[in-house]
Amino acid sequence: MRNVAIVGTGHSKFGVRNDVSMQELAWEAVKQALEEANLEQKDIQYFVVGNVGMWSAEELPAVVVGEYCDLTPKGTMRVEAACATGSAAIRDAYQAIKAGEIDVALVVGVEQMSQSPNPQVIELIGRAGNYFWEFENFGLTFPGYYALYASAYMAKYGMKEEDLGSVAVKNHYYGARNPYAQFQKEITMEEYLKSKPVAQPLKLLDSSPITDGAAALILASEEVARKITDSPVWIVSQGVASGTANLSRRTDFTGIEASYVAAKEAYKRAKIDFSDAWRYFDVADVHDCFTIAEIMAYEDLGFAKRGEGHLMARNGETYIGGKIPVNVDGGLKAKGHPIGATGVSMAVSITRQLLYRAHKGTQADIRNGMGITHNVGGTGHYAYITIYSTRRPSS
Amino acid sequence: MRNVAIVGTGHSKFGVRNDVSMQELAWEAVKQALEEANLEQKDIQYFVVGNVGMWSAEELPAVVVGEYCDLTPKGTMRVEAACATGSAAIRDAYQAIKAGEIDVALVVGVEQMSQSPNPQVIELIGRAGNYFWEFENFGLTFPGYYALYASAYMAKYGMKEEDLGSVAVKNHYYGARNPYAQFQKEITMEEYLKSKPVAQPLKLLDSSPITDGAAALILASEEVARKITDSPVWIVSQGVASGTANLSRRTDFTGIEASYVAAKEAYKRAKIDFSDAWRYFDVADVHDCFTIAEIMAYEDLGFAKRGEGHLMARNGETYIGGKIPVNVDGGLKAKGHPIGATGVSMAVSITRQLLYRAHKGTQADIRNGMGITHNVGGTGHYAYITIYSTRRPSS
Repeated sequence: MRNVAIVGTGHSKFGVRNDVSMQELAWEAVKQALEEANLEQKDIQYFVVGNVGMWSAEELPAVVVGEYCDLTPKGTMRVEAACATGSAAIRDAYQAIKAGEIDVALVVGVEQMSQSPNPQVIELIGRAGNYFWEFENFGLTFPGYYALYASAYMAKYGMKEEDLGSVAVKNHYYGARNPYAQFQKEITMEEYLKSKPVAQPLKLLDSSPITDGAAALILASEEVARKITDSPVWIVSQGVASGTANLSRRTDFTGIEASYVAAKEAYKRAKIDFSDAWRYFDVADVHDCFTIAEIMAYEDLGFAKRGEGHLMARNGETYIGGKIPVNVDGGLKAKGHPIGATGVSMAVSITRQLLYRAHKGTQADIRNGMGITHNVGGTGHYAYITIYSTRRPSS
Repeated sequence: MRNVAIVGTGHSKFGVRNDVSMQELAWEAVKQALEEANLEQKDIQYFVVGNVGMWSAEELPAVVVGEYCDLTPKGTMRVEAACATGSAAIRDAYQAIKAGEIDVALVVGVEQMSQSPNPQVIELIGRAGNYFWEFENFGLTFPGYYALYASAYMAKYGMKEEDLGSVAVKNHYYGARNPYAQFQKEITMEEYLKSKPVAQPLKLLDSSPITDGAAALILASEEVARKITDSPVWIVSQGVASGTANLSRRTDFTGIEASYVAAKEAYKRAKIDFSDAWRYFDVADVHDCFTIAEIMAYEDLGFAKRGEGHLMARNGETYIGGKIPVNVDGGLKAKGHPIGATGVSMAVSITRQLLYRAHKGTQADIRNGMGITHNVGGTGHYAYITIYSTRRPSS
């Protein structure tokens, strides 16, 4: 099959973006990606829009974004995989090129969550899972779901509040150095420990924010990529899995099964040994919608043994210079989490890391030329793992 | 690239289905497809769910459907292309197999429109297009959009009400013979002419209904398809295009530009000559959300010359035995239009036609072994064309 490369990246400022419409926000990222790839809209053969959009009244976000970005009449669709929507969009374009249907595709993830004609954002996010069963019957909401995981992990492995806090402190440390981040400020452990409870044991500073933002990628087949850039970043493999819609049916609350299944698939395709996976990657972006999610990701991805993820955080092993730098763009926690854009934003961060184009103070050491993104939808209802490399995969 | 075949089809009863939940409705189609392919859930490597679902409170339809159908933890996503959502779902699975990511995929399109916690279905459909501009500012709704096309076509080509009516009469004639159809009754031209106006010149009997329904396909790579069935139906090619989000920016209202662009792409890939495209196909399903849409489709697909589509309807050339049988499953008009399922339903109908498995009284004569589906999202905001054949494409 054909190799697929990332040849352009774009990223908007994340935060409360009431200054723009959804399509204007998307254009900020699309424009940057086109300029980076030195391409024009006519060069794009297909575009896919990642947007959850329950809170946007634009029910045809792909065509509205497409027209504003002057991509009409190119083929398009909107994809959704909850908070993993951005990665699902990448998958659609990646497969279209790998399948030989097209040679150049644009991926844009966009979400406008703070500005909405029907502003029930929190309730809508709360519905993630099986709405009619768990939300309506038991009132389980999104922070509540992750609080169950945090409580179970604490009970089983003796994790302390400070272990969760160390993730928040790290991600704010790097967010403070990312000009695109929603929260460009560091926090202290004291501030963390004093922050308001959201769903015990999770506090406000364990939680990712409500964010408006967009991110874009331009993907190309190997033949075309060679003409566009001399620094392609290849998509080596993807792994994708789903989890039970009902958390009441999950057997374990100390890891996300779908993440583990998707990671194993992606690693198998990339010939990566799970037991020391961390050795392969120079940098990783993982889905820290809550701090506990990042700690579980360390284990689900094979960066730490079961029950030792919280120590990895406590010991600072995921800072730059540590065992494996994780979320050194600030992560969902500090960079922000515009759910349709997050997966694309992760890919932008990893691509720029591998090319030594990261923001000052956030550049990891690139030795093996490989990176990974881990993007979760809902509470492990969806999981997408993508592996990137500066070295051409053998196709 | 690898060839991709349809190896199983499933279809639920369309209509007002308050007797089932969305996931139960999906299972009706999935179960039938699995049985037809003689496969079990464990054999499915990936599934994609086509669902627009603005009126469903299930915000993660793919995982809810996946769990109910026992497909967890297989990878999945939800795709949306307005009323072309079903075809977008087929495209996702088709590309995944063609790209070599997987060998067997399940496609399910499902929509439950009549039963809803927030039953503003009509308003939600009305929003199709650019909500903030045309819907909020001008109050343009979906029937109004197509009424503009019907008026323009009448003015330019002298189409009569009876020409529109002849499409409704034909589709109800075949719908009466399709046990899955929402309206299993014939109508007369007199009934048509007396039916209530919806948006002049369109009447109630020009309009497709609000429908609950599901349809499913199982796709497989050539190697695997050979083991599953001795009667594969191959996907020969797809064409996909988009149109301006704002109808106020369209230059012509007598055809759907996106349909024409997508058809040309699909024909080019399949080496089909546009000027006599109808000769290649034994049967077609086109997107008759309103009768005018079917007449424009005749022309956008090259079945009739510009301005002659309404004559094709009037002269009965699209009945079985005519020039090319179109919507002999009843079409959206009589079979119903559950928007996330419609594109998959079209593929099920064409597959069964090509295999001589159509319902009694609806089987077309199959000579060339080729069929086509035309699925439009919004008012030509999306267009998906898919070509099917019983003869293996040269890959």
